[in-house]
Amino acid sequence: MGAQLEFWFDFASTYSYLSAMRIEQAASAKGVSVSWQPFLLGPIFAEQGWKNSPFNIYPAKGRYMWRDMERLTAARDLPFQRPAAFPQNSLKAARLALAIEAPDQRAEFTRAVYAAEFGAGRDISDAEVLAECLADAGLSPDLLTRIGDADIKAELFEQVERAKARGIFGAPSFVAGDELFWGDDRLDDAISYALTI
Amino acid sequence: MGAQLEFWFDFASTYSYLSAMRIEQAASAKGVSVSWQPFLLGPIFAEQGWKNSPFNIYPAKGRYMWRDMERLTAARDLPFQRPAAFPQNSLKAARLALAIEAPDQRAEFTRAVYAAEFGAGRDISDAEVLAECLADAGLSPDLLTRIGDADIKAELFEQVERAKARGIFGAPSFVAGDELFWGDDRLDDAISYALTI
Repeated sequence: MGAQLEFWFDFASTYSYLSAMRIEQAASAKGVSVSWQPFLLGPIFAEQGWKNSPFNIYPAKGRYMWRDMERLTAARDLPFQRPAAFPQNSLKAARLALAIEAPDQRAEFTRAVYAAEFGAGRDISDAEVLAECLADAGLSPDLLTRIGDADIKAELFEQVERAKARGIFGAPSFVAGDELFWGDDRLDDAISYALTI
Repeated sequence: MGAQLEFWFDFASTYSYLSAMRIEQAASAKGVSVSWQPFLLGPIFAEQGWKNSPFNIYPAKGRYMWRDMERLTAARDLPFQRPAAFPQNSLKAARLALAIEAPDQRAEFTRAVYAAEFGAGRDISDAEVLAECLADAGLSPDLLTRIGDADIKAELFEQVERAKARGIFGAPSFVAGDELFWGDDRLDDAISYALTI
């Protein structure tokens, strides 16, 4: 088994969009395989006393983040459109991503969701938008029924516990062995580290 | 007048140590001149409701930061020793840096303070440590008397107001024209941007 990197993302996270769009290419170029791990930041933020995104709680930080995203997406030739509402409700998208077991399709669905949300400014809690994202990944809209299933709900709950156990406090996060790397800015370091273990 | 970049730092800030140690070389290699701007994050954090460093308020974030600093300083061959107390009281060091008007000496003093604090784990609110840092920059310890002077106190107050006016909410921050860049991870982008205006 070759080098492995876990990619932990919340669908509401702006900077996770940047990583989702480049991680497969960056990792495979170095021979590292990526495990896509959807989770929810909300319960982790709530434990820190945040009932909203820190980018909304701290306005200067929020203004900066949006400008930073504009600059970074422009530099990477990624489409960027700020959604009307932020943060979006990422619960359904996260459950759907977990319901997709095939790694390539989960990755493709995930990229489609981020592209809809931050590339086109669409609402990812909308079942129609999610159905289109499933279609983009070659999947049936029937999968939407999985959103309410008990096993998927339990699995997402477990994902949040696993994230906490890894010391994760934000997204995107990358884990290789016992090392945690936070933020799209650390993706290349995380890939390089994965090769050493 | 050539390209200019403002470097805003708080002496208590760990990641500012990384930037202080490389900014002159990185900027001058591209023909950009650096203006060293000491300020205090405390009053800005207090307005956000933080009475302590966010790295202490949010333990997972703090644990991560110290590990991240270990990795980054090792990769850059910088000495690193976590000080016994964090954050340190950076008030005297900030006032002293402002009292040094010659840009090169201000930069040299600043690097000496960061090296003492995060390279050697020393207490930068200690007058003896600060006197050594002044000596490292070829300056007299007599400058320590400036710490209590009204004009320097007022100047530091003004620096915090200037930082707020620039939208600064953390350190290190870099400003070129109307663009703000936050974090050592954005230093190279900030230098590149400074060349375009």
